[in-house]
Amino acid sequence: MAVPPSTYPRRLLPLFLGLFQGALLLFFALFVTYDEPSEQAEDASLVANQVYSTFPFFQDIQVMLVVGLGLLLTFLPRYGFSALTHNFLLLNFSAQWALVLQGLLHRFHHGHIHLDLHKLLLSEFAAVTVLISVGAILGRASPCQLLVMATCEIPLYLASEWVIVTCLGVLDVGGTITIHVFSCYFGLGVSKALFRAAQQPLHPKETPTTSSDLMSLVGTLILWVFWPSFVAVLCQPGDAQHRAILNTLLAMSASAITTVVASSLLERDGKLSPGHLQNGSLAGGVAIGVLADMAVPPAAALALGSLSAVLCVLGFRFLTPLLARKLTLHDQCGIHNLHGLPGILGAAASVVAILVAPEDTAGPHPSQPSPAAGNASQAAQGQGGSRALCQAAGLALAVGAPLLAGLLTGSALRLPCLARPPQRLCFEDSLYFRIHDQAESPAPDSSAEEGALALKEQV
Amino acid sequence: MAVPPSTYPRRLLPLFLGLFQGALLLFFALFVTYDEPSEQAEDASLVANQVYSTFPFFQDIQVMLVVGLGLLLTFLPRYGFSALTHNFLLLNFSAQWALVLQGLLHRFHHGHIHLDLHKLLLSEFAAVTVLISVGAILGRASPCQLLVMATCEIPLYLASEWVIVTCLGVLDVGGTITIHVFSCYFGLGVSKALFRAAQQPLHPKETPTTSSDLMSLVGTLILWVFWPSFVAVLCQPGDAQHRAILNTLLAMSASAITTVVASSLLERDGKLSPGHLQNGSLAGGVAIGVLADMAVPPAAALALGSLSAVLCVLGFRFLTPLLARKLTLHDQCGIHNLHGLPGILGAAASVVAILVAPEDTAGPHPSQPSPAAGNASQAAQGQGGSRALCQAAGLALAVGAPLLAGLLTGSALRLPCLARPPQRLCFEDSLYFRIHDQAESPAPDSSAEEGALALKEQV
Amino acid sequence: MAVPPSTYPRRLLPLFLGLFQGALLLFFALFVTYDEPSEQAEDASLVANQVYSTFPFFQDIQVMLVVGLGLLLTFLPRYGFSALTHNFLLLNFSAQWALVLQGLLHRFHHGHIHLDLHKLLLSEFAAVTVLISVGAILGRASPCQLLVMATCEIPLYLASEWVIVTCLGVLDVGGTITIHVFSCYFGLGVSKALFRAAQQPLHPKETPTTSSDLMSLVGTLILWVFWPSFVAVLCQPGDAQHRAILNTLLAMSASAITTVVASSLLERDGKLSPGHLQNGSLAGGVAIGVLADMAVPPAAALALGSLSAVLCVLGFRFLTPLLARKLTLHDQCGIHNLHGLPGILGAAASVVAILVAPEDTAGPHPSQPSPAAGNASQAAQGQGGSRALCQAAGLALAVGAPLLAGLLTGSALRLPCLARPPQRLCFEDSLYFRIHDQAESPAPDSSAEEGALALKEQV
Repeated sequence: MAVPPSTYPRRLLPLFLGLFQGALLLFFALFVTYDEPSEQAEDASLVANQVYSTFPFFQDIQVMLVVGLGLLLTFLPRYGFSALTHNFLLLNFSAQWALVLQGLLHRFHHGHIHLDLHKLLLSEFAAVTVLISVGAILGRASPCQLLVMATCEIPLYLASEWVIVTCLGVLDVGGTITIHVFSCYFGLGVSKALFRAAQQPLHPKETPTTSSDLMSLVGTLILWVFWPSFVAVLCQPGDAQHRAILNTLLAMSASAITTVVASSLLERDGKLSPGHLQNGSLAGGVAIGVLADMAVPPAAALALGSLSAVLCVLGFRFLTPLLARKLTLHDQCGIHNLHGLPGILGAAASVVAILVAPEDTAGPHPSQPSPAAGNASQAAQGQGGSRALCQAAGLALAVGAPLLAGLLTGSALRLPCLARPPQRLCFEDSLYFRIHDQAESPAPDSSAEEGALALKEQV
Repeated sequence: MAVPPSTYPRRLLPLFLGLFQGALLLFFALFVTYDEPSEQAEDASLVANQVYSTFPFFQDIQVMLVVGLGLLLTFLPRYGFSALTHNFLLLNFSAQWALVLQGLLHRFHHGHIHLDLHKLLLSEFAAVTVLISVGAILGRASPCQLLVMATCEIPLYLASEWVIVTCLGVLDVGGTITIHVFSCYFGLGVSKALFRAAQQPLHPKETPTTSSDLMSLVGTLILWVFWPSFVAVLCQPGDAQHRAILNTLLAMSASAITTVVASSLLERDGKLSPGHLQNGSLAGGVAIGVLADMAVPPAAALALGSLSAVLCVLGFRFLTPLLARKLTLHDQCGIHNLHGLPGILGAAASVVAILVAPEDTAGPHPSQPSPAAGNASQAAQGQGGSRALCQAAGLALAVGAPLLAGLLTGSALRLPCLARPPQRLCFEDSLYFRIHDQAESPAPDSSAEEGALALKEQV
Repeated sequence: MAVPPSTYPRRLLPLFLGLFQGALLLFFALFVTYDEPSEQAEDASLVANQVYSTFPFFQDIQVMLVVGLGLLLTFLPRYGFSALTHNFLLLNFSAQWALVLQGLLHRFHHGHIHLDLHKLLLSEFAAVTVLISVGAILGRASPCQLLVMATCEIPLYLASEWVIVTCLGVLDVGGTITIHVFSCYFGLGVSKALFRAAQQPLHPKETPTTSSDLMSLVGTLILWVFWPSFVAVLCQPGDAQHRAILNTLLAMSASAITTVVASSLLERDGKLSPGHLQNGSLAGGVAIGVLADMAVPPAAALALGSLSAVLCVLGFRFLTPLLARKLTLHDQCGIHNLHGLPGILGAAASVVAILVAPEDTAGPHPSQPSPAAGNASQAAQGQGGSRALCQAAGLALAVGAPLLAGLLTGSALRLPCLARPPQRLCFEDSLYFRIHDQAESPAPDSSAEEGALALKEQV
């Protein structure tokens, strides 16, 4: 092979991505078409209505994932460009990969795969898991490692989502269990296996600056604003969707305020920690997802938002350092505090909600026929217990399976050819990008003088 | 009390917010429910349509308030994190507080309060008043002072909005009078009473840097883009809403260009002032709100946009320094120039519009029945005078009442326990946040060397 | 004239803009009205539906142009404020100017011009051409020069769009040919005539810093997210619009991944170039516009996205330096790589698509009646050749005409009164804005000390 050895690992990235893109093209050329154009006028109006009802939500979610999440990850002052780009790259790669796998799994027996906006949306949801998991090892892994991780995580997500939602009939309209809890424990598993027992000491480049913290907070705010779209997009249109939006708004508003309370009380001098704000404000959105469309009272959404924010801040303050010390478990962005703990809280709340009011929370459960209106309440009571059990089983599966799979994946990421950056070069944009340092920019104090000269010259 | 005295003021914030959040939760648990789920299919479709027609506007407004307004306030270079966070906190606090008060005031006699997206939207509108008023004292007040200010302002806003819109029948679809003028004079009152006769000298940290000015301009542009949604969201769907969108677009476009003209002409060397651009471009949106849905000709929207931009720039150049000198009235963000002057201009324009063409501007006036089609024009002529008088009375109320209430509120803010920061520590993020200074980041010139080393290590 | 000569050129900008704004106001007052309000309830519902179906797209496009494109241009570290402001000013100026010209050209014989959202949208599209063309001379031209350029380009665009779409019947729903190719060659023509044979040496202020590159990438991501709205807004609602959205999403996703592959392979050390990412990720959106709503297979959209990204990166790496060396053609932002090459590729692809499957790509061709269903396929075959020829002719026109007109316009921009900044003062915000340098901000290392003092004082 003619490539000189010193540059070998850098060639793996384009090679891998290029082959993937070629294979995807082939797959699409062979098997994927659009829906047949609708012949009749009323069908056309139906399609138009579907576009108008889904597309704004879809765009909101794209903004969240590409801009909001990307900016949230720029808190590392010398790794902002990498964080934004890798997030963007992984989103596209994972969504395409999910599209292929979904096509293969569910649609192959129909001959052709018919692509529509809804399928793209489902593949975006799959990609979200990767973007979350990456947070555990942000800045300490190479792009190749992240792509291999995505390659492993997507099929596992599709399988676990199928078991949890389709087989167990778990209700989880906002992806609390299937996306947030799942991806958190996958990421933690990867981190554990990748770093093993090696303590990850605080790197000097890890400390955020004021301006990187500000950019990251802007990312949080963008996520905060558009989160209701993420939770409500897959709801039944009408009351359920309306309720999902309201519940999410209430939970996130309570999270925002409670985060300030909790962060301020936990620090000795009462100062707020930017990290708490950046994460705690979103915790309510993670927790509410699992019961956003259920007929729970608004107060429950508020309580859940507040509790999840408290859990998140407590996690940052006590649990993350404890896990790092006792289990040498490294969690760079604190995904366990933002996605793990609030997700488990939300799942527990859904169990309670189903036990308390089974008839108000009945979703489209696939394995049992909808009960007749006459004895619906009694039947629901009976079903409540089993459905609550299913939720709990789903949660257990979303913790255990990805943890195990993450450990395996993390071990694979230790392959030397994947080029993990050495400790000293972590959190460094210039390892991956041709960027210019601010020190190279011309001295700012020369500008006043230049301005005066400019006026003279223009005369 | 075990808290050491030195940290006492810092405990007030979490205490206040925590108690509020607890009380809110109790209130919601006792009195607030969602609308009953609609039983029939056509009702479900109706709800779905309401969601699709309101939710995109609602999201636009959230982006404006959380991201746009937040960024606009980051022009203070060492106070950006505080500006963004306090804006976010106040929005959530004020909206929740408005939700409670609206519930108590309007719905209590129905037993339960039914929450829906429209009520949340109205509470967001109430919160906007607080976010605007804060601009007068930005950077010179503690978070506790801002929360107390919000606590006082929201009930006053709800009362004054009820008098102006419901009792006087003032037409003000975009909140020019009820929101912008009201909150401006409330903020000025607070500022006057808080600082009394003490001149606020120019603080060294007050001067924007290039990068803080750039972030602030991005905030302006976000507000500029989404402003039509703010003005049009409460309009009658159909022609009125269409017209409100168009009028707002025209007024804001004229504002943008006229701001450049005015700013360039007013400065001796013809250079543009960032502050003028950041504010003047939005002045048209403030002014047009009061007559956006009236059947005024498009040229009127253009003229109003241009005039309000000129007023805004003139205000920054001459009126703000004059008020500071003569009345020792401090207006940190120049809210009088962006919200006060253009708001009064818009209200005056609405009086003229009603006098000139009363039949084209007739809105849903509550105190008079809609005239029969036969002699509508004549009746409208007669009504024109009284309706114009109502507009003027509404404007007078929206100037006088908040000014008085603001003076009282500002006096209350002088309580020592509210911990106003001393002059020397104003405009300083590190007073409220655990942030790290950019000086602590590693020297940038070491990166090229590290890059070379990285390649060697990976071989 | 009393204006001292040294400040004369600076007075031209407000004079020009002020006169324009006054003339616009007069024009609107005389000739422009809104649509008559619809009398019947069903009409009102129709208008409401039009607003709900168009307005979200319109807002997306506004975000793209004002925030996304503006931020993309901030990659010049000391010219960010100018780039953002000039982009904003030119958008407003060009859209208003296009509104006037469109009114004069198409509607004058109806007596009055009826303004609606669709007309505003068309004028925004016209303004896009100016915003793209400016990229060729960004930072090296004065605002006056840019305004004169806009004044010349808008009428030429309207004329060429009329010839290409209405006369030749070219299908180009996303503006690939009429907007992107057109504006690219206009900008190159201006650049050539403005700089003539003078080499534009690399200016020290031209080199992006990490933070300016980051802001620019955020702009790219915003453009990337909302691009489907730009392509699909003018499509027939229903299947065609749905397909246009999907095709654009696929093309842009492929672009994003392929850009990483191409950029990584082209650099010796495998590092990615920020400039490639900022532009290549969008190339697919440019190319797909011309056939987004045609019934092409999804694989074609993927292939087109990948190819256009490769072309774009190759253009940056080889063609731009070559053109600069051989033809002394200066292209500051590389618009030829982002808009020229992918646009030509897209146009070529549309020719192939029409030749291969003429019946699936038949749009609303104005000059030929829609064939009867019986022998539609055969007739389409026959028409395929002539329609493909029309596409090619449209492309040729969109390259040649603006190149010529650009050369003329560029010569006009050399007028001394337009105040081109001297080479030494290019890329400098402080030439146009009263901005404060970061060096003037207080030393950051004083803050820790101040924080300690603050705590003491509050006791």
